[in-house]
Amino acid sequence: MKRWEMTAVGREQLRLVDVPVPEPRAGEVLVRVAAVSLNYRDKLVIENGMGLALDHPFTPASDLAGTVMALGEGVSRFKMGDRVISTFSPDWVEGRPPGSARTPPFRTLGGAYPGVLAEYVSFPEGWFVAAPQSLDLAAASTLPCAGLTAWFALVERGRLKAGETVLVQGTGGVALFGLQIAKLHGAEVFVTSGKTDKLDRVRALGADQAIDRTAGDWVEAVYRLTGDRGIDHILEIVGGAHLARSLEAVAVHGRISVIGVLEGYEVSGPAPHLLRKSPVVQGVSVGHRRALEDLVAAVDATGLKPVIGQRYTLEELPKALDHLDRGPFGKLVIEIG
Amino acid sequence: MKRWEMTAVGREQLRLVDVPVPEPRAGEVLVRVAAVSLNYRDKLVIENGMGLALDHPFTPASDLAGTVMALGEGVSRFKMGDRVISTFSPDWVEGRPPGSARTPPFRTLGGAYPGVLAEYVSFPEGWFVAAPQSLDLAAASTLPCAGLTAWFALVERGRLKAGETVLVQGTGGVALFGLQIAKLHGAEVFVTSGKTDKLDRVRALGADQAIDRTAGDWVEAVYRLTGDRGIDHILEIVGGAHLARSLEAVAVHGRISVIGVLEGYEVSGPAPHLLRKSPVVQGVSVGHRRALEDLVAAVDATGLKPVIGQRYTLEELPKALDHLDRGPFGKLVIEIG
Amino acid sequence: MKRWEMTAVGREQLRLVDVPVPEPRAGEVLVRVAAVSLNYRDKLVIENGMGLALDHPFTPASDLAGTVMALGEGVSRFKMGDRVISTFSPDWVEGRPPGSARTPPFRTLGGAYPGVLAEYVSFPEGWFVAAPQSLDLAAASTLPCAGLTAWFALVERGRLKAGETVLVQGTGGVALFGLQIAKLHGAEVFVTSGKTDKLDRVRALGADQAIDRTAGDWVEAVYRLTGDRGIDHILEIVGGAHLARSLEAVAVHGRISVIGVLEGYEVSGPAPHLLRKSPVVQGVSVGHRRALEDLVAAVDATGLKPVIGQRYTLEELPKALDHLDRGPFGKLVIEIG
Amino acid sequence: MKRWEMTAVGREQLRLVDVPVPEPRAGEVLVRVAAVSLNYRDKLVIENGMGLALDHPFTPASDLAGTVMALGEGVSRFKMGDRVISTFSPDWVEGRPPGSARTPPFRTLGGAYPGVLAEYVSFPEGWFVAAPQSLDLAAASTLPCAGLTAWFALVERGRLKAGETVLVQGTGGVALFGLQIAKLHGAEVFVTSGKTDKLDRVRALGADQAIDRTAGDWVEAVYRLTGDRGIDHILEIVGGAHLARSLEAVAVHGRISVIGVLEGYEVSGPAPHLLRKSPVVQGVSVGHRRALEDLVAAVDATGLKPVIGQRYTLEELPKALDHLDRGPFGKLVIEIG
Repeated sequence: MKRWEMTAVGREQLRLVDVPVPEPRAGEVLVRVAAVSLNYRDKLVIENGMGLALDHPFTPASDLAGTVMALGEGVSRFKMGDRVISTFSPDWVEGRPPGSARTPPFRTLGGAYPGVLAEYVSFPEGWFVAAPQSLDLAAASTLPCAGLTAWFALVERGRLKAGETVLVQGTGGVALFGLQIAKLHGAEVFVTSGKTDKLDRVRALGADQAIDRTAGDWVEAVYRLTGDRGIDHILEIVGGAHLARSLEAVAVHGRISVIGVLEGYEVSGPAPHLLRKSPVVQGVSVGHRRALEDLVAAVDATGLKPVIGQRYTLEELPKALDHLDRGPFGKLVIEIG
Repeated sequence: MKRWEMTAVGREQLRLVDVPVPEPRAGEVLVRVAAVSLNYRDKLVIENGMGLALDHPFTPASDLAGTVMALGEGVSRFKMGDRVISTFSPDWVEGRPPGSARTPPFRTLGGAYPGVLAEYVSFPEGWFVAAPQSLDLAAASTLPCAGLTAWFALVERGRLKAGETVLVQGTGGVALFGLQIAKLHGAEVFVTSGKTDKLDRVRALGADQAIDRTAGDWVEAVYRLTGDRGIDHILEIVGGAHLARSLEAVAVHGRISVIGVLEGYEVSGPAPHLLRKSPVVQGVSVGHRRALEDLVAAVDATGLKPVIGQRYTLEELPKALDHLDRGPFGKLVIEIG
Repeated sequence: MKRWEMTAVGREQLRLVDVPVPEPRAGEVLVRVAAVSLNYRDKLVIENGMGLALDHPFTPASDLAGTVMALGEGVSRFKMGDRVISTFSPDWVEGRPPGSARTPPFRTLGGAYPGVLAEYVSFPEGWFVAAPQSLDLAAASTLPCAGLTAWFALVERGRLKAGETVLVQGTGGVALFGLQIAKLHGAEVFVTSGKTDKLDRVRALGADQAIDRTAGDWVEAVYRLTGDRGIDHILEIVGGAHLARSLEAVAVHGRISVIGVLEGYEVSGPAPHLLRKSPVVQGVSVGHRRALEDLVAAVDATGLKPVIGQRYTLEELPKALDHLDRGPFGKLVIEIG
Repeated sequence: MKRWEMTAVGREQLRLVDVPVPEPRAGEVLVRVAAVSLNYRDKLVIENGMGLALDHPFTPASDLAGTVMALGEGVSRFKMGDRVISTFSPDWVEGRPPGSARTPPFRTLGGAYPGVLAEYVSFPEGWFVAAPQSLDLAAASTLPCAGLTAWFALVERGRLKAGETVLVQGTGGVALFGLQIAKLHGAEVFVTSGKTDKLDRVRALGADQAIDRTAGDWVEAVYRLTGDRGIDHILEIVGGAHLARSLEAVAVHGRISVIGVLEGYEVSGPAPHLLRKSPVVQGVSVGHRRALEDLVAAVDATGLKPVIGQRYTLEELPKALDHLDRGPFGKLVIEIG
């Protein structure tokens, strides 16, 4: 079978190699991978390792959808032929993830754990969740990180309800899931983007307000469009010092989910807004398996269709990474076989 | 009657003047002030106005305890002789305070609303809460800001429970209330202080761990004392860039209540801890009237006694402000009459 | 102006009388009533007083929509021409309603407080909420009781999310609002009804499963349709011993909102289901003003249109009450003027 | 080794037999049992099987404390010599327990799973939790059911806080844990009992109000002692039609945790109190493993000492069951070896 591997960090280190199909050990399921969805974080891991102690040869990426082809001894969660998706933090089933104040949770697929850019993987059965029946496997592969991150921020943590306002930044995978999940719950959705051609596309997806970041101060636009009330739920995807703008835009007692680190690893903002509006500022690092199961149920109940910006073959990974550099509209999916 | 007034900001502007006792208007109660508790914020308002549009002559301070001496027309919450305490944000009864994203909540006593450093005040009845029966009025006067801030952070927002860890910074009014309220709920309490003579005093108040900030890195001490687990609830009283240390010390899924601005009006910290440990970071700006009523009930049910660092007379306000500069142990109270 | 009044309980006591238009007192607004929505509870109050100490002459009904025509002294929430709806429990703004263990909350319009079946009413400004901009006044009048009850049960208390299952019983006002509000949030909705002609109508409103109660055991149908998983949120509208059926149908850790008393004032059910599935069973008696404001925002954000079964004129109240006896599909509205 | 076994239900079927010490299989730990705490439910299972399909020979009882003596292959949670306690519902780690609407969760030790009245047991490592360091093993054995039930009702579900009122019925194991856990959190605790000699004993344990049920209506006493406000958290231990009394006693928006079935398997009560006071009524069937770990942390942080009514040897089980018939004060513990 084919698998992407690297023996050192750096995009140029990626090699598509031939390796034997793994044998499922006790408790594992062998999954034929149909699709892998890429995340911005995969690019960072490939390029700089993100400070993780990677086992080499290392296979990147965390999000797959596929079909169970063989069962290790004692497997009970799945049977042959089941369609499954992966979990990003496989040890985090519910409640708190393992980890401590000193060593925060960090074991994820395509990082401290093996990645999924391969024709087959064999992982413990608990690392998988049943795929939604209403999605094909390419679409299903977008749920484990991007879909769950938006769901976890807005629903599991944010307990979003109809009539509330939601703002997402940009038109990447998490942002568009945020838009769609917010609309599922009857929210009024604001999208900011610096690319005017994308504003119409987010309107077509249901955005109530598409704000052109290049046409003026987006926070002022928010004040104007909400009668100064501000935004109840902000997905802070830009990160870094941009948190300051979200603290300005957020409503009294709103919520800012800090997700992205595009603008740096140091977040900052004005204390007076933090104190006087008293928003919850909370980092979100994907979510747990039970919430992924909830998201799958929501997808099946509502018919939500993830936005796939472009599909690539396994061999086209380098082109897909180039696309990731440019910032896709929605998700990029590697289809296999 | 006597009242402290200023016609411009600056500590030297304070004048103790003679004015008529006010008449309660419809809906107001006249309260004979027995005690006023000072907060660090009063010092800032006196010295620089904190950006508020103060009505001059301006009377500072927000926290009083006193006795109802006369009733305006239509008053129903109180009767003559009732012992009462003030509320800091009188328009905030429950839920969200009034205010918007653009103009966050700001109407508080001794700020946009009149202050209480006077022998009598006449305010709307809804601005007061019944004082606890178990406290004298000097002690009761410490609840509206310092007591409620700690209660709101730990209990109303934090839903603290027995066995959790709580860390408070320093030995000021909010910190010591945090210590006491946390012990009321069976928590394990950590106090950091740079003044070694105060460490024994917080141990005597029930602190489980008193950490000398001058004896090494306090975050390392927290790691050591908790087996790396970290702290569930941190009252971030220092503020500014110190948030970074709290993000290091906080447990996975813990809570950091940002309360203080001693080290500046820009908060900042490392995104990786914010994302991977996913703590709630939430500004706390005192709290609402219903929570103050809950605190009063808790004080009466448990016999909690606020820590009064020193008592002053009304005339001694300047000395009390000097003491505030030095950082008192617990609360400073002006006793009147 | 015209107003329905009664001087003793009993439907035959209702008289449409001519009375002067009231003058708004200080703090009141005069509202020209455009529509009154009837509730089953109004029928009970008219027929037997429901144990309330009614002031005679008594005007029934609680839910109006209308226009502000005059302002009493000191009014600040509304201005001339504002479109408003009433609140059912006007003293309950947020948090807990006034009342005690011995004397539970009971002051509602068309009960301990005056009713609204009149061309004009003058009530304190705090008794009103701005009507949604997206509804005409007939539709807006359905929100204060039926709309808010379903919202309070599912959203304010139940924190419903997409992918969860909701079951409503019958096709009355609360049931259809429950269906619509659940669909707004992406839920999968089950409706039970004994009237087969209504099953198609609820499907047209978005019900995912319309269960004919006359075609077999509805709890078995629920088990079959959910793969034995059961229902996350049940609006128990039948009441009495029927709670037992809801305890059978409810999912593990689900929620049963007890709303109706059609089958009696004594609720009962099997302890084993209550203990082993551990659902929340909670009575819902409409809701508070802040939640009504949330519902109004949700209606405007989503375009929800309440289901009006039939419209009547003010004079036709007796015919409307007859219709209430037969069980309408959705709400009955009295349109005035 | 010795083990109590029965081959048919009925107290007279109990036999203390000699069996080999089990070998730990993969994933199991062998535990030398030091103490077993008895619950009223054990008596019911022994006497009538409680409708469970018991595997015979059947060993009753669920709550043990002991020491790890051998490790099966792959064990990682514990090491030799660790002091552990059992979990009641071993498949329920967090969130929802396994089970469905049709077949509610039911797999517990000393029921569908094996019991613990033996000198040694070998169970999967996940079935155990580290015992608190501050308790001897006899005291630690009382936590898995009685301790966790009270904790789950008051803390995990009820989010009890200082100043709230708690009422427990009687002086059995759950009731006394409820009293102690409530006092840990600063609550005001009411205990009702029909045995006057026990009222002084609960006062000595910290009860604020000990109400003699034989001296008048206890609900009236609650009204009188709370100024009609009622009780925020009731542990409804009597069950059956007694729920009606708790619905009378409960505060507006309070919580009734239904725990006991002493008075029958059909619960019932007045709908008007359920609707107008809107308490949460929720069955509690012990709790999950993470909450047991929280309780252990709380015991260690606070020094809570469970109340042991009497200690028996393994051979004295019949005498202990007789004592259970009479209603002990606190817990009965079988000490082994």
